[in-house]
Amino acid sequence: MDFGPARLRVESGADEEGGSSVGRKPKKQDRVVVALGGNALLRPGEAPTLASQVGNARRAMRALVPLVESGKSLVLTHGNGFQVGNILVRVEEALGKAYAIPLEMCVAESQGEIGYLLEQSLQNVLARNGLSRPVVSLLTLVLVDRKDPAFDEPTKPVGPYYGPKRAKELKRHGFPMVNQKGRGWRRVVASPEPVEIDDVDTIETLLQQGIIVIAAGGGGVPVVRKRNGMLEGVPAVIDKDLASGLLATAVGAPRLIILTGERAVFRDYQAKNAKRVPRLTIDEARRMAEDGQFPPGSMGPKVQAAIEFLERGGTDVLITSIAWLGRALGGRGGTWITRSSKRGA
Amino acid sequence: MDFGPARLRVESGADEEGGSSVGRKPKKQDRVVVALGGNALLRPGEAPTLASQVGNARRAMRALVPLVESGKSLVLTHGNGFQVGNILVRVEEALGKAYAIPLEMCVAESQGEIGYLLEQSLQNVLARNGLSRPVVSLLTLVLVDRKDPAFDEPTKPVGPYYGPKRAKELKRHGFPMVNQKGRGWRRVVASPEPVEIDDVDTIETLLQQGIIVIAAGGGGVPVVRKRNGMLEGVPAVIDKDLASGLLATAVGAPRLIILTGERAVFRDYQAKNAKRVPRLTIDEARRMAEDGQFPPGSMGPKVQAAIEFLERGGTDVLITSIAWLGRALGGRGGTWITRSSKRGA
Repeated sequence: MDFGPARLRVESGADEEGGSSVGRKPKKQDRVVVALGGNALLRPGEAPTLASQVGNARRAMRALVPLVESGKSLVLTHGNGFQVGNILVRVEEALGKAYAIPLEMCVAESQGEIGYLLEQSLQNVLARNGLSRPVVSLLTLVLVDRKDPAFDEPTKPVGPYYGPKRAKELKRHGFPMVNQKGRGWRRVVASPEPVEIDDVDTIETLLQQGIIVIAAGGGGVPVVRKRNGMLEGVPAVIDKDLASGLLATAVGAPRLIILTGERAVFRDYQAKNAKRVPRLTIDEARRMAEDGQFPPGSMGPKVQAAIEFLERGGTDVLITSIAWLGRALGGRGGTWITRSSKRGA
Repeated sequence: MDFGPARLRVESGADEEGGSSVGRKPKKQDRVVVALGGNALLRPGEAPTLASQVGNARRAMRALVPLVESGKSLVLTHGNGFQVGNILVRVEEALGKAYAIPLEMCVAESQGEIGYLLEQSLQNVLARNGLSRPVVSLLTLVLVDRKDPAFDEPTKPVGPYYGPKRAKELKRHGFPMVNQKGRGWRRVVASPEPVEIDDVDTIETLLQQGIIVIAAGGGGVPVVRKRNGMLEGVPAVIDKDLASGLLATAVGAPRLIILTGERAVFRDYQAKNAKRVPRLTIDEARRMAEDGQFPPGSMGPKVQAAIEFLERGGTDVLITSIAWLGRALGGRGGTWITRSSKRGA
């Protein structure tokens, strides 16, 4: 495609600066990893269609424009719960008519599907705003530890809800199932900790050239390294916020932005007097977690990802919603988490 | 992942040579685009399962080892007919239970699925052979012309075979259908010519760093540029050999290798006295095509892709099978097509 007059040249004969034609060489300190939550593509109560997702993707990508305009070097990660759930339904409904694929391959398919949606949407939004930046979406494998205790106790629900009869059948076929109060049975799978982003060298190369990278979709395709050194996929899902934090560390990004359904972290979230927490140090975040302020499966993994990223040397983490991103970047919303009490941003 | 002692360094502080730790800077003249045919992942008569594909992928990737060993810089493309057909079946069987996605998004999913299969398989095969080269799989959009006459006359069959009743229903829903003698009805979609590989700058960047790139799977996700400049997916499929040839030209690869079910191009293919054609010039290939030697949908598009690639400046094209690749590279098999009568290789 034609990226317009400011098109990035990366041919053999390109200048040593690697991207002088976009004005300047992208700097490591300008790197930001933005993790798009599942809500970014389908909000609760919306029609669960592709049309909804297309509209939401456009809105989400528009929210990223100020970051690109301000010269940030973006890595975009995304959740895939809704999409991979639908892929699992399709696989199951077509059993006997189409070959079955394991969960990790469903994750790979969802990276293709969502990567396409986001890449095209972001390219269009950037073009409409007169911005010329290549965008690429990578299939991303993420290594997990085969001895991760998560494999002994699957906890992450995936896919559709089943009635008790079908749940029993699936259980007999070796799939662990969980009864979700009133809504039915669901498969549960292991959610091991991400250990290493397989494609980090590639992402590094692309960022150095000023290319916006979409990666680690759905937390990445989970693979283990076998004793003989070979990679092998495992039917698990990796928390996308933990994978995003790990990726941010791996590419030396000082900032991680977690976009979720809530505009900020709240104290006493479920209570009437819930109060937005504008900023937190690691210690304060840890204390809130110990107080049980963050339910698992929602704000819990996000705060955990933030703490781990900051402990590994990250500068700051912003947790907010797409609608609030602009204000939060201006210091008027969201929750900023930093190592010490000096505020980030 | 750990690529071992020769791991490619691409961090900010990397040396100017960009890859000295792998011994040398990859050269443009060493670039080869290898197009894997559908037969590479599922051969006629094999059980249409994922297990078959996993075994075949490993065999196909092993055949590429000599190319990597000899210092070639690889771009791997692949077909997706069987896999996208199965995705279409899954989408249809789950209608009403999972959201529907259009054909181009099915192609994107198949790029994720097959990209994962090939990337992991190739990484393992290389590691087993003591070779340290990063492998990455890219979601690839390919631009087509919205005025391509193919859109007026869909010809490419996709997806499952239907009975006459279901075929009638689908026809009523606006899907063009074709009756394939005795085997049933199938959807037919447009197969427009590829005009531009959207992600070619990114692929260029990666090749310069010695990274093996898997791209343009299934011929690429077909998109058009609308009058307002925006990209939009179209429900079509692009011939993967034509897209591979275009990609080879775009990255300046002198060589295109098309791996198919046949070990070579044959004269009088259907006849008893079919004879392998060891080498062809563009002119000879064109004459054979005019003689009707290449049926459409099989050897036809491969020879067309070869001719077009050579006309745009390519040096040589090899058409052979995975099993024959080694011998063909040694000049003892396959069909080499070159611009003039001086033999390539």
